[in-house]
Amino acid sequence: RQPVSGVADLRDKSCDGITWLNWSGLGETSKMAKLFEHYGIHPLTAEDILNCESRSKLEESSESLFVVMKIPVSMEEVGVIEAVHFCLFWQGNTVLTFSEIPLKFLTDLDRRLDDPKRKIRSHGVDYLVWALLDLVTDHSLRFVEHLSDRVEEIEDQLIDDEVEIEMETIHEIKNEVTQTYRLIRPCREITAQLSSSDSVAMGENTARYFRDLHDHAAEAVEQVDHLRDKTASLRELYFTLMSHRMNGVMKVLTSLSAIFLPLTFLAGIYGMNFAHMPELGLRWAYPVFLVFLVSLAVVLAIYFKKKGWL
Amino acid sequence: RQPVSGVADLRDKSCDGITWLNWSGLGETSKMAKLFEHYGIHPLTAEDILNCESRSKLEESSESLFVVMKIPVSMEEVGVIEAVHFCLFWQGNTVLTFSEIPLKFLTDLDRRLDDPKRKIRSHGVDYLVWALLDLVTDHSLRFVEHLSDRVEEIEDQLIDDEVEIEMETIHEIKNEVTQTYRLIRPCREITAQLSSSDSVAMGENTARYFRDLHDHAAEAVEQVDHLRDKTASLRELYFTLMSHRMNGVMKVLTSLSAIFLPLTFLAGIYGMNFAHMPELGLRWAYPVFLVFLVSLAVVLAIYFKKKGWL
Amino acid sequence: RQPVSGVADLRDKSCDGITWLNWSGLGETSKMAKLFEHYGIHPLTAEDILNCESRSKLEESSESLFVVMKIPVSMEEVGVIEAVHFCLFWQGNTVLTFSEIPLKFLTDLDRRLDDPKRKIRSHGVDYLVWALLDLVTDHSLRFVEHLSDRVEEIEDQLIDDEVEIEMETIHEIKNEVTQTYRLIRPCREITAQLSSSDSVAMGENTARYFRDLHDHAAEAVEQVDHLRDKTASLRELYFTLMSHRMNGVMKVLTSLSAIFLPLTFLAGIYGMNFAHMPELGLRWAYPVFLVFLVSLAVVLAIYFKKKGWL
Amino acid sequence: RQPVSGVADLRDKSCDGITWLNWSGLGETSKMAKLFEHYGIHPLTAEDILNCESRSKLEESSESLFVVMKIPVSMEEVGVIEAVHFCLFWQGNTVLTFSEIPLKFLTDLDRRLDDPKRKIRSHGVDYLVWALLDLVTDHSLRFVEHLSDRVEEIEDQLIDDEVEIEMETIHEIKNEVTQTYRLIRPCREITAQLSSSDSVAMGENTARYFRDLHDHAAEAVEQVDHLRDKTASLRELYFTLMSHRMNGVMKVLTSLSAIFLPLTFLAGIYGMNFAHMPELGLRWAYPVFLVFLVSLAVVLAIYFKKKGWL
Amino acid sequence: RQPVSGVADLRDKSCDGITWLNWSGLGETSKMAKLFEHYGIHPLTAEDILNCESRSKLEESSESLFVVMKIPVSMEEVGVIEAVHFCLFWQGNTVLTFSEIPLKFLTDLDRRLDDPKRKIRSHGVDYLVWALLDLVTDHSLRFVEHLSDRVEEIEDQLIDDEVEIEMETIHEIKNEVTQTYRLIRPCREITAQLSSSDSVAMGENTARYFRDLHDHAAEAVEQVDHLRDKTASLRELYFTLMSHRMNGVMKVLTSLSAIFLPLTFLAGIYGMNFAHMPELGLRWAYPVFLVFLVSLAVVLAIYFKKKGWL
Repeated sequence: RQPVSGVADLRDKSCDGITWLNWSGLGETSKMAKLFEHYGIHPLTAEDILNCESRSKLEESSESLFVVMKIPVSMEEVGVIEAVHFCLFWQGNTVLTFSEIPLKFLTDLDRRLDDPKRKIRSHGVDYLVWALLDLVTDHSLRFVEHLSDRVEEIEDQLIDDEVEIEMETIHEIKNEVTQTYRLIRPCREITAQLSSSDSVAMGENTARYFRDLHDHAAEAVEQVDHLRDKTASLRELYFTLMSHRMNGVMKVLTSLSAIFLPLTFLAGIYGMNFAHMPELGLRWAYPVFLVFLVSLAVVLAIYFKKKGWL
Repeated sequence: RQPVSGVADLRDKSCDGITWLNWSGLGETSKMAKLFEHYGIHPLTAEDILNCESRSKLEESSESLFVVMKIPVSMEEVGVIEAVHFCLFWQGNTVLTFSEIPLKFLTDLDRRLDDPKRKIRSHGVDYLVWALLDLVTDHSLRFVEHLSDRVEEIEDQLIDDEVEIEMETIHEIKNEVTQTYRLIRPCREITAQLSSSDSVAMGENTARYFRDLHDHAAEAVEQVDHLRDKTASLRELYFTLMSHRMNGVMKVLTSLSAIFLPLTFLAGIYGMNFAHMPELGLRWAYPVFLVFLVSLAVVLAIYFKKKGWL
Repeated sequence: RQPVSGVADLRDKSCDGITWLNWSGLGETSKMAKLFEHYGIHPLTAEDILNCESRSKLEESSESLFVVMKIPVSMEEVGVIEAVHFCLFWQGNTVLTFSEIPLKFLTDLDRRLDDPKRKIRSHGVDYLVWALLDLVTDHSLRFVEHLSDRVEEIEDQLIDDEVEIEMETIHEIKNEVTQTYRLIRPCREITAQLSSSDSVAMGENTARYFRDLHDHAAEAVEQVDHLRDKTASLRELYFTLMSHRMNGVMKVLTSLSAIFLPLTFLAGIYGMNFAHMPELGLRWAYPVFLVFLVSLAVVLAIYFKKKGWL
Repeated sequence: RQPVSGVADLRDKSCDGITWLNWSGLGETSKMAKLFEHYGIHPLTAEDILNCESRSKLEESSESLFVVMKIPVSMEEVGVIEAVHFCLFWQGNTVLTFSEIPLKFLTDLDRRLDDPKRKIRSHGVDYLVWALLDLVTDHSLRFVEHLSDRVEEIEDQLIDDEVEIEMETIHEIKNEVTQTYRLIRPCREITAQLSSSDSVAMGENTARYFRDLHDHAAEAVEQVDHLRDKTASLRELYFTLMSHRMNGVMKVLTSLSAIFLPLTFLAGIYGMNFAHMPELGLRWAYPVFLVFLVSLAVVLAIYFKKKGWL
Repeated sequence: RQPVSGVADLRDKSCDGITWLNWSGLGETSKMAKLFEHYGIHPLTAEDILNCESRSKLEESSESLFVVMKIPVSMEEVGVIEAVHFCLFWQGNTVLTFSEIPLKFLTDLDRRLDDPKRKIRSHGVDYLVWALLDLVTDHSLRFVEHLSDRVEEIEDQLIDDEVEIEMETIHEIKNEVTQTYRLIRPCREITAQLSSSDSVAMGENTARYFRDLHDHAAEAVEQVDHLRDKTASLRELYFTLMSHRMNGVMKVLTSLSAIFLPLTFLAGIYGMNFAHMPELGLRWAYPVFLVFLVSLAVVLAIYFKKKGWL
């Protein structure tokens, strides 16, 4: 059970009867063509491995198992999730994995396998397959949890209403959640099929591990599903807040108008040029009128303040 | 049939051939490891017991039954529902229950079992399993009813329109309902599976009790489902009320403008400095004009009052 | 086949080999306990009969049939629908019905049975069960039709836009429709099960009647489902109307501003105190200016009238 | 194979061993009762024929086939679709059809059958049944297409934004689409059942025709389903347009205010009565100020014109 | 295996035992009638070929396979997608394809078949059928990708908020996506049926190709489904942006009012004609007051600028 990274030295390194070959990057097509030929991989399967756009799926035959999965990876750019293409081919004692880019968790497993005391070395090839798929599922679960944290952060900011959240932020996180959902959802069906499968030589004990794997995959899918509800809910919250603010602006405008329109009108009254306006000649008329205007403004302002409009 | 709380004295206390062990808190891992070993619990099952994040599920084999459930518990903080992790393992005459925190209703059952005249002591181990799950389901039902009361209270306040309900309150109650739904929904499938199950040695009479249990679980799920509709409906109602208030504010603004814009204009007319404005010289012009302005204002105010805009 | 209303005289009155016992009100628990014991009703079934909160369901065994149904009844209060708990237990030649409150249609059937020439007296016990359930379904159908009339009335009022419909009215009717749906929906499954059932000794001819019963139940459910769509549609209509009115208010405000802002400005011009304003000295300046202002106002008013803003 | 319109002369006219009787209008109950008796129609079937409210359905027995369908018919009133009740009963060599009102396409078929050279006369009774149901389905398809044209017309008018579409028009067309959907949807299940049915003596060749019939029915249902999406989409479009217009009104108001508020203020400045306002005495002050005001207004108007607010 | 374009010379050109006839344009009915007769095509199948409105479907019998598909083609007009009617009939060694208009990819295949070294010439007739359907599916996939690019472009423009997107653009792209979905969706079922079918003489190896075909079809459907979500999301985004702009307009209006209403009022004060207004006589009153007004305006403008309202 030795991980091998080149085709040339493939025969030599495989020991314990079990071979695991991990291939990162799908560029060297000629080398890969040799590899496919060496392991008798069907042209259609080879096409699925090489084409990063091919769908997640599980293909079982009486002899072999072929799994395509998409692993969500966050890019630096906000709102963009890359889908790393990952394939696993299992035939007899040989397990081949292919990934679009090098995956850290596979390298870690590689290192763990070097240690001869590790539990994984004492199990059959079906356990190795489980271990590989479990790593993929665990990665997805952690990814979803990270996404969930970010959604909750945005929700808190929205409710606190201190940081001004842009609609774009919500649109982006929603896109990320939708993309993640589309990538992770097929895993549930694939693991369900695996856990109920008899076609591949799988020990009863390992079958139990595959059922556990399905539990994890289902949990990841449920969590993303929940996140979808939440982001939809965020949008509504955003709408309400916008509508709330609009209400606020309208109230300010109305209060201002309610205060200044009467005042301006009253000032206009004493700007009229009627010959006989007795008040105009009174000594204290002007200061009294000013005091009246100020009092009126203050009363109206207090009234609207109490109503919560200002 | 004696509840036991420690592993050491496990053999001694079990009598009547039936042992029920309830374990609260999942911290003492070394003790629990011993317990798992003693009862021959599979590592994956053990992991499910210890991991509070594991999903609700039912695992049946020809010998044992393993149930994971989530019990919703209200925290003091509004809008937050804790999921208490609860596991039940049944093998032969032994029933083990594990809960994240001590659960009051389990302690109550414990006390009831001390009473040798209790009906529960005269039934088989399957009846004990039913009794335990029935307590969990009953707890959930009561929890849902409490939630339902709160939703209805908010609905009443919204319609009365006296207390000003914040969008956050609705958002929080909606989150609580969604969380509860996610916790309780799996119970329906679990109890359905249990009530149609033959794998475990279950008396025909007890099977009837399990069907009853399923009825209760289904009722709880239906009620939460109904609550989800209701909270969605609350949001719409809130939107409408906000929109209604906005309409109100706009009407006030328009009424004010409709009253004061003409008045100010008319006052402006007599503020003009044309040399020949015959009205200005008339003795009664000013008071007559004032009366006219006031009448106009009153007529307009009454008009808008009647229209319901003021 | 004699309806009986007390337990004591139960044996005496039952003739023709068929007994129908109708029990209204679930208060006298001790009497009912005796009754349950007399007919050998299982404790769980008894609990379902006594607990008004138990779900609608059908329980069939090789010997007996037990149906729980909820009958929607309008209360005087608007927006509130009561669910009357109704149970039917059929074993051999005995049919027991229990209802939370006395149901008029059952009393009517009771009276019809007194007439020995009635068709119902010449059929078997299965026909009696059908007749009872048909009455319940018919009641539900009529109830739904009544609800449908009210929804249509509200819809007409909304579109006519003369009576001002409150959001609360729509919210209440929506709640009623939702509650009715929740009460009636299970009937479809129950009658479907009944019409395809072989477990109970049901004549081929009666089976046909049960299929007919299922048709009626399905129709009731479809109608309520349609009502749900309609009430959702009412809400949207209400929103649009509100938004329409808001538009109207805004247009009035804008028209008013467009008319009076220029007028006030123009009046302000001739209120200025420049030393050299030749127009001010002209004899006809004032009346000409007034005529100009009025014409401007009229032209603007006509313009906005034509635009439909005033 | 002669269509017959009265019961009395039923025996005489039927030739070729195949009888088709078409009955329009469900009023003459006594005559119909005789007819039902004559053909041995079960009371429940008779009830379904006479009750115009009974649901669309297919009832098959080893001897007979009974189909209830609803045919959508446009009434003159906009927004109202009548459901014409149509029943077909087939037993042995006899086909009875009943319709609430006379249906033109049935009369046409009647006439076609008079022509002895017609293909339909050379086929079996199953072909006649197919021909009848095909006419009904074709009618529905044409009805849906007509509805589709009207929906598209409204959509075009909404987007052109020239004709002002009322919310009621959209509400009405939506109601019509919903009603049509409810009437036509059951046809898909009925024809699916018919096309996969073996119970009735149906030639292999005719079975093919029934599969074709199902295709047509399914197409009609799909088209109405598509129309439902479209009308929902129309509503949203309407909302957006209303919101767009509101935006427009608001922009006009704001532009007007932005132009006249500063002008009025400036005019107000020179209406003040301060003793020392040197500008007031200058000879060209007034015309210069007027030119300034007009330029300001023009600049602002151009600015808002460019911004698309006026 | 020679493509043939006329019926007359049909017998001559077919070699290798395999005949592929591609017929573009459905106008020449008399010629086609001869063709149908020559190949013994059932009248109903012929009708499906000739009727461009017939639904996508798969008809399998023990001898033949008949596929109807709709190929989406973009028209020059925006918002309009044409459905090209495409039929494939396979019987024994003969494959007939019919398309409403000439399809470029079929002509390309035609040319490829001329080359005797091509792989496709060395496979059986089932491989030819696969190749034809694969071309159709590939065309659909490319079509969907093109549509997807356009949706993303609109999304970017909406978020950038520089180009002003009209509601109509979004409505049109939504219509296109919906239409494409309706055309492509049936392909998934058809290819699923084909890939699990045993009825037609299909080699095990080719079956694998058909499963691959199903993968592609499913991918296309999933992508369009995703596009539907996205366009729905675009609408919401558009609504929010409109609402956002409205908010902006309102803020400008309110800020303007808040600045000019007080100024106008203050100017009005000193326009009053009270006899005793001591400030009016002061030498520096006027310039000081002007400076005060300007400062007030600047302070208010800065305040609203900071608030983001101007």
